[in-house]
Amino acid sequence: MFRKEIYTARRAKLKQTTGSGLLLFLGNNESGMNYADNTYHFRQDSTFLYFFGLAYAGLNAVIDIDHDKEIIFGDELTMDAIVWMGIQPTLREKGENAGITDIRPSAAIADYLKSAVQGKQTIHYLPVYRAEHQVKLLTWLDIYPGAEKPSLPFILGVVNQRNYKSAEEIAEIDKACIVTADMHLTAMRMVRPGIRESEVAAAVAEVAYSNNYQLSFPIIATINGQTLHNHYHGNLIKSGDMLLLDAGAETEMGYAGDMSSTIPADSQFTTRQKEIYDIAVASHEAAVNAIRPGILFEEVYDLSARVIMEGLKDLGFVKGDPSEAVRAGAHALFFPCGLGHMMGLDVHDMENLGEVYVGYDGRPKSTQFGRKSLRLGRKLEPGFVLTIEPGIYFIPELIDLWRSRQEFAEFINYEKVATYKDFSGIRNEEDYLITETGSRLLGKKIPLHTNEVEALR
Amino acid sequence: MFRKEIYTARRAKLKQTTGSGLLLFLGNNESGMNYADNTYHFRQDSTFLYFFGLAYAGLNAVIDIDHDKEIIFGDELTMDAIVWMGIQPTLREKGENAGITDIRPSAAIADYLKSAVQGKQTIHYLPVYRAEHQVKLLTWLDIYPGAEKPSLPFILGVVNQRNYKSAEEIAEIDKACIVTADMHLTAMRMVRPGIRESEVAAAVAEVAYSNNYQLSFPIIATINGQTLHNHYHGNLIKSGDMLLLDAGAETEMGYAGDMSSTIPADSQFTTRQKEIYDIAVASHEAAVNAIRPGILFEEVYDLSARVIMEGLKDLGFVKGDPSEAVRAGAHALFFPCGLGHMMGLDVHDMENLGEVYVGYDGRPKSTQFGRKSLRLGRKLEPGFVLTIEPGIYFIPELIDLWRSRQEFAEFINYEKVATYKDFSGIRNEEDYLITETGSRLLGKKIPLHTNEVEALR
Repeated sequence: MFRKEIYTARRAKLKQTTGSGLLLFLGNNESGMNYADNTYHFRQDSTFLYFFGLAYAGLNAVIDIDHDKEIIFGDELTMDAIVWMGIQPTLREKGENAGITDIRPSAAIADYLKSAVQGKQTIHYLPVYRAEHQVKLLTWLDIYPGAEKPSLPFILGVVNQRNYKSAEEIAEIDKACIVTADMHLTAMRMVRPGIRESEVAAAVAEVAYSNNYQLSFPIIATINGQTLHNHYHGNLIKSGDMLLLDAGAETEMGYAGDMSSTIPADSQFTTRQKEIYDIAVASHEAAVNAIRPGILFEEVYDLSARVIMEGLKDLGFVKGDPSEAVRAGAHALFFPCGLGHMMGLDVHDMENLGEVYVGYDGRPKSTQFGRKSLRLGRKLEPGFVLTIEPGIYFIPELIDLWRSRQEFAEFINYEKVATYKDFSGIRNEEDYLITETGSRLLGKKIPLHTNEVEALR
Repeated sequence: MFRKEIYTARRAKLKQTTGSGLLLFLGNNESGMNYADNTYHFRQDSTFLYFFGLAYAGLNAVIDIDHDKEIIFGDELTMDAIVWMGIQPTLREKGENAGITDIRPSAAIADYLKSAVQGKQTIHYLPVYRAEHQVKLLTWLDIYPGAEKPSLPFILGVVNQRNYKSAEEIAEIDKACIVTADMHLTAMRMVRPGIRESEVAAAVAEVAYSNNYQLSFPIIATINGQTLHNHYHGNLIKSGDMLLLDAGAETEMGYAGDMSSTIPADSQFTTRQKEIYDIAVASHEAAVNAIRPGILFEEVYDLSARVIMEGLKDLGFVKGDPSEAVRAGAHALFFPCGLGHMMGLDVHDMENLGEVYVGYDGRPKSTQFGRKSLRLGRKLEPGFVLTIEPGIYFIPELIDLWRSRQEFAEFINYEKVATYKDFSGIRNEEDYLITETGSRLLGKKIPLHTNEVEALR
């Protein structure tokens, strides 16, 4: 945890921006995997962590602005629980670490909320993302699953604090990114024909776990990099393959790192691979050079997409004017995902609060295929932490579909593209802090250019 | 998956034992960690796996005995999902693998169940262990969270099949146990003063993941072995410590292994450690030698507890008659957990269905501290797979509590016990199949006696 003054100040600011009502913070419970007591590793809700810092299961909290109260609801451990799970700080001690002195038993929250409803107080809560949240809202506030009405002032209050990372937070993210970089270096040193994806994924996970960190998201370690979020690790790596690794560490305090790299199975990239890889790197570096306070991230996305289309035009995959092709959306055949996203306590920071508020400042998102996957489009400001991760993918199913419809036939040379249906995909990803004057790489540099990657092989 | 005839036969038998009504199988969904799309690794419900074999999220199934129908409800992937998650077999193909031809869209299940209720059919469902199950029962059947009434005939029908492992299942469990053994061998070779618990836990996890297996439960790798389910991995291992490792692998089909070992930080156990360790091994071997068809497992538990109390009497921790001490419950100061549990598709097999049905054949469980944690008490039968894991623990909080109450003072020498409050705990655990004539170790043998463990150090 940070020192308690940080949490107290965050809550004070949130009370001020929300103005009135009661803010309900749903802490997370343990999640049973195949029965209640066989749990996934516990992950506290990130907003709960941000305002209270307490990574324990079974807590909920209230900031009652109207009555100037801050309350944590929870239960002390029984002797049975101590025998099985070990001793923990008392609730009073936990509360003190968060700057909270009003501690009440879990069961008291239902009555507290009922009184608030009877007193006509506005109950603010955030969007739910676990069924357990739905059950809590149902049993405490009679809100039927699916009928939740999250509070926009609460969402905006949270987003407008969490989007701007403080020095302490940046130090944590730097730690996450250093371990994340080590995860990728480990993979770059071990990938070779004849080993399985699962062996790489296991070694990458080991780096995070041995630091007593968690994974910030499920590892992608695949020779089928054209599938963007491919969690299957059952393939054997063969000569001529590339392994796309997308993996990140999460610190004990919950801050994420998130990097991607694309590693040839053999000691060198093939010419065909290098040609595409170099375009992806050019796109990546154009984006990195462009990010600074004041620029609209959607413009950086346009730039990165244009660099990709220019490169693919030189190779004969693309025809016509690259800028026009990007405006029309033709680039999404090769680059159907976004350029990057906010990162912090969540690897896609605050994705549960709504990308429009986090990444678009309330401006509506595009519905165009490809561009709609851009999680971040707003004007960049100092303190933002984000990823840069353009990629080039040859997705057989998408190529077949678009070709059958002759989608964007004026921009795409389908005959040539069809010969690359076995190519897979390429993505490199780094994490950046927007500074007053530009940007700074978080963590440490890992090989990006083909010669740098090959030097480690 | 096994071949489809196996699933068809299992379902046919279940229909026969349940007799009438409609059996509702709640398949598991993806579980969001800190937002909906950042998921924990997917784990299908074990009973769903047992009867349908399909390890995909978002499926539910019905066996309508009254109308002789078997239906899987699910949705085909969209092109967006294929781009992000990759291609999967079609629902029709999935159904065929399970011997099911009646496939309907997810949304159709609510109406199907509504008709069944209107037709006065009995809807059988199993106990819930995820909030998502509660939300499903609420939205489909108007069952309020907490008001679920699981079906006893359904529970018994499932238990009476899953308790008896078939040859194919035993082969899977053997695979899980071999990888589990390798996880422990890895730890035995690496534990030493100066490394962190997290490094051991990470290396142990790597063995499972590199085989493309999962962990069957969260790894315990702790110098505080006196805490039975201690998931903290932040301590440095120091000279004089012992590391208690409890870890198991889960095969791709979902079958579990589960072993424990206790490893000295130094190349040899201290005399103090060896004295207690030898008692734990004597208890372990007494239990292993006793298990066979027809014996009540609770008697084996009594035997293992008695061996512990006899050994502790020789060392001066315990007074009086060991058998009487066990009958009274005094052994629970040192041995507050059970001797073992059923194992299969769940590491504590079918724990969600109720231990009384799985482990006690409907006979009520003891409420005595210690004995109440025995998950298995029934008469053993060929085909049962279970763990043997007696342990000796010195739990400071429990020692202080019992001493202050002079609990079982006629059996316990608190003065001596108090000098061992820093000892921690010892547990060794192996997995056995009950055969027609006795038992068989599953997987492969790992070092158990102190000299065997020391030979690997």
